[in-house]
Parts: sequence; structure tokens; C-alpha cells
Amino acid sequence: MRLDLYNAKSFERGRPRWLEAMWLLAQSIFLASPLWGTHLRVAVLQLFGARIGRGVTIKPGVRVKFPWRLQIGDHCWIGEDVWLDNLAEIHIGDHCCLSQGAYLCTGSHDWSRVSFDLMVKPIVLENEVWLAARSIVGPGVTAGRGAVLALGSVATRNLLPWHVHQGVPAVPVKPREIRNSD
Amino acid sequence: MRLDLYNAKSFERGRPRWLEAMWLLAQSIFLASPLWGTHLRVAVLQLFGARIGRGVTIKPGVRVKFPWRLQIGDHCWIGEDVWLDNLAEIHIGDHCCLSQGAYLCTGSHDWSRVSFDLMVKPIVLENEVWLAARSIVGPGVTAGRGAVLALGSVATRNLLPWHVHQGVPAVPVKPREIRNSD
Amino acid sequence: MRLDLYNAKSFERGRPRWLEAMWLLAQSIFLASPLWGTHLRVAVLQLFGARIGRGVTIKPGVRVKFPWRLQIGDHCWIGEDVWLDNLAEIHIGDHCCLSQGAYLCTGSHDWSRVSFDLMVKPIVLENEVWLAARSIVGPGVTAGRGAVLALGSVATRNLLPWHVHQGVPAVPVKPREIRNSD
Repeated sequence: MRLDLYNAKSFERGRPRWLEAMWLLAQSIFLASPLWGTHLRVAVLQLFGARIGRGVTIKPGVRVKFPWRLQIGDHCWIGEDVWLDNLAEIHIGDHCCLSQGAYLCTGSHDWSRVSFDLMVKPIVLENEVWLAARSIVGPGVTAGRGAVLALGSVATRNLLPWHVHQGVPAVPVKPREIRNSD
Repeated sequence: MRLDLYNAKSFERGRPRWLEAMWLLAQSIFLASPLWGTHLRVAVLQLFGARIGRGVTIKPGVRVKFPWRLQIGDHCWIGEDVWLDNLAEIHIGDHCCLSQGAYLCTGSHDWSRVSFDLMVKPIVLENEVWLAARSIVGPGVTAGRGAVLALGSVATRNLLPWHVHQGVPAVPVKPREIRNSD
Repeated sequence: MRLDLYNAKSFERGRPRWLEAMWLLAQSIFLASPLWGTHLRVAVLQLFGARIGRGVTIKPGVRVKFPWRLQIGDHCWIGEDVWLDNLAEIHIGDHCCLSQGAYLCTGSHDWSRVSFDLMVKPIVLENEVWLAARSIVGPGVTAGRGAVLALGSVATRNLLPWHVHQGVPAVPVKPREIRNSD
């Protein structure tokens, strides 16, 4: 492993550096504020290229690496201090809940190579997924429809639809059954 | 799961929104400061309704959701960046140590219901409990007297008195025996 | 356990309190900035006593307890929001990668004593170690050359050279084989 041989140039950031710097400033001012509202945060993210549906709530302290690689469906909640570290695309379906402090990581490195090459892989959350507080999702993971990742758990593989997953690494622990509202 | 059907109105926040906004500002200014002292932080928390005993140390960066739902006994330490996410009451006994980055989560959701109802449950730490750095305690957990939760572990069930717990989810791994000071 | 009997006086901080306060201010201004560059961060850390090699990258939001107890070799990467909580020395070799949100904890307490004595132990990362994002390393751990600690895992014991470790607590899960660059 020779980090001096690492080549960052081959990674495509998608936007010029000056725009990325403007995004970092906008994030510090508008997303980090403990008070201002969700509509402003959504508008700022959209201004920088995020595709965000209707009825989405974005709480204070959310961080996004590249808004231009983010898609959020309708009626989602992005909780306080959620970190969307989207070197690659993150696609979030409808009615998803990302609770406070969740971390989505799309980047890894090829540890078998001396040059420690960057590897990025998208994350997909299908509809009705819940990532509980301080949970972590790794690169390339798809969370099937209705999947749940428990408090503080780490998903390194795909999550089964309509199952609750727990642990480091997370494994399915029980089915998630939905009752009709009564 | 239909987040557009979610009803936040039924949750009782305990104080009017304007007071909550003032608390958020006070927290940003006085609790987040990297320098100012523990006495000021205790006083500000008490001003907003927290019940705090004698000889309590509160380090920089501590976050509290609702100070009016927080009770801390005598001679406790609340470490740097501890997050007391107390939608429901958090009661901390005497001589407890919450190390840096610990997270106490009182809120969850009923994943079996389409309306994803909010469920909040109090957390109780009895006397002489130690939550080690970056550990997590879930809703409804009672940590028995003298319980220890290890570095980065996640408590989803009650912690046994005078035992050390580790893992995600945490399980008891050994008894905690106290020798007399010599 | 009687936290009122705890004696902080016996712990040697290595520098006077006024210098530590200046470091906290410098950290808030120069290291926390989301924009400014790595050279400035390295220079500020060196000014306060850190020994840092050539070609080291330090990302925004890095926290260091005592720069005078930090040694970093050549060509290392210290990622966003890495927390080097070095009450005791942290020694990082050459070509090490500490990914975003990693936490290195050198302090613990003697839970078997009523006085809850502080125990600090150094952390050593030998050359070519990778701590993945949001991983945690505990007091006294030595990570052998080329060791990898996976996403969100917690190292409480020494890490084997050229092995990947995962879990809470982390255990070796596979060898790390390096191919020649081709």
C-alpha cells in the first residue's frame, strides 16, 4: 500500500471545484442551522442538483457530499445529522425514514492493490425503508422494499424486503409485518 | 408504510414551540462552545427545566432535546458530544459517567403500522452506571445499578446491575467487581 | 463508584491550561473549517507540537485532544471528522488511511475501583493500516502492519497484520492479500 501512488484524478466529481466549494458553504449556512426550516433546505439542495419529491422533511445538520448525485422520493424524512456521503449516486424511494445520525457510505478502497484504488458504488433504498438512528449503510447496498436496519447496526450487504436487520455486520432477525391501520 | 399519514400532532412536546426554539439557540451558544465551563452549561440547562444535582460536570458539545425531560443526580459526568435525545424522560442517577459521543435514544416507530406511529419510552440509568464512549442506549432501557456498556456497544434491552455489556446488540460479558480503595 | 472521590490532578496533561485553551480555539477556527486546505491544518497541528511527516492529508472537522501527543508518518490520510482522542500518545505509521468519522480512544477507567481511576494507554497504527469509516479503536490497541478495520467496527484488542477485522468487538475475518500493481 503506497498512498503516494494513489491517483485521485481518475475520479469524476461531476461538477467543477468552485461549484463544490459553493455547495460546502451553502451547506454550512443553510443545512447546518439548528433552526431554519425544511423547505429552505430542500430548495438549496435542489438548487445544487438534487432531485427531491413532494412532502420531504429534512432536519438540521444533514450533510450531502454531492447534491447532484442524490435522488429522494416523496414523503421521506431525513433526520438530524444524517450524512449522505454520496461519491456515487444515492437513490431513496418513497416513504423512507432515515433517522438521526444515520451514515450512508458509497466509497471504499481496493485494499488488495498497492495503489489503494478508490471504489465507489451506489446505494439504493427502495420504498418504505427505515434506517434507525446511528445506523450505517455501506457501498453497493440495496435495501429492499420495507427493510428496517436497527439502531446502530451496519449494513454491508443487501437488506431483505420486509425484514428487520441488526448487528455489525447486520443480519436479518425477524420479518416486518404490517397490520392495516385500525 | 405511508409517511404522509403520520400524525405528529398527537405527540406532546411539553413546552410551546417558541420556548423550544429559544432552547435550540441557547444550546448552540452555550453548550456547543468548546471553551466555556461546566457551571454555565448546568445553569442554562436548569433555566430550561432540567433537574440537575450537585457536582455535575457537563463537557462541550452536549445536546439535549428537551431539558424539561431530563433529571441528573449528583456527581455525574456528561462527556463531550453526548446526545440526550429525550423525547421521553431520561433519568440519570448519582455517580454516573456518560463518556464522549454516547447517544441515548428515547424514540422509535411502530414499524408494523402503516402510519409508522411514534413510540417514545423513557431511559433510566441507576446509580454508578458507566456508558463508555460512542455507546448507544435505546428506548425503554433501564441500566441497573453499576452497569457498564462498553465502547461502541448498543443496548436495546435492560442492562444487568454490576455487569459489563458489549456488542450490537449488547449482551452481558462479565461481572463488574468493585474492590475497596486501598 | 464515587465520582466525587475521583482525582484528576494525578493526570499529566503535558502543557499548561492556557496553551490547551489556545489549541481548542485554533482547532475551532482552522481544523473545523469546511473549506480551507490541508497544508494549513498540518501547519497548525505542528505549531502545537504534532510530529507530522510528508504528504499527509488532513480533511475538515478532524479533532485532536493533545497535538503534542500525536505522531503521523508520511503519506497518511486523516479523513473528515476523525477524532484522535489522545490523552495518551497516538502513533500513526506511513501510508495509513483513517476514513471519515473514525474515533481513536486512549482513555478508560478502572471500573473495579470506587475512585474510578483514569487509565490511559497509547494507540499504535503500524504502516499501511486502514481504519474504515466510523470505526473505533480502543485504548492500548496496536494495529499490525497492513491491518484493516471494517466500516463501523470496534477494535478492543490488537489487530493482526495483513488481516481484515470486523464486528463489535472486531475479530479477524479474512487475510488481506496485496497484488502487485498491474
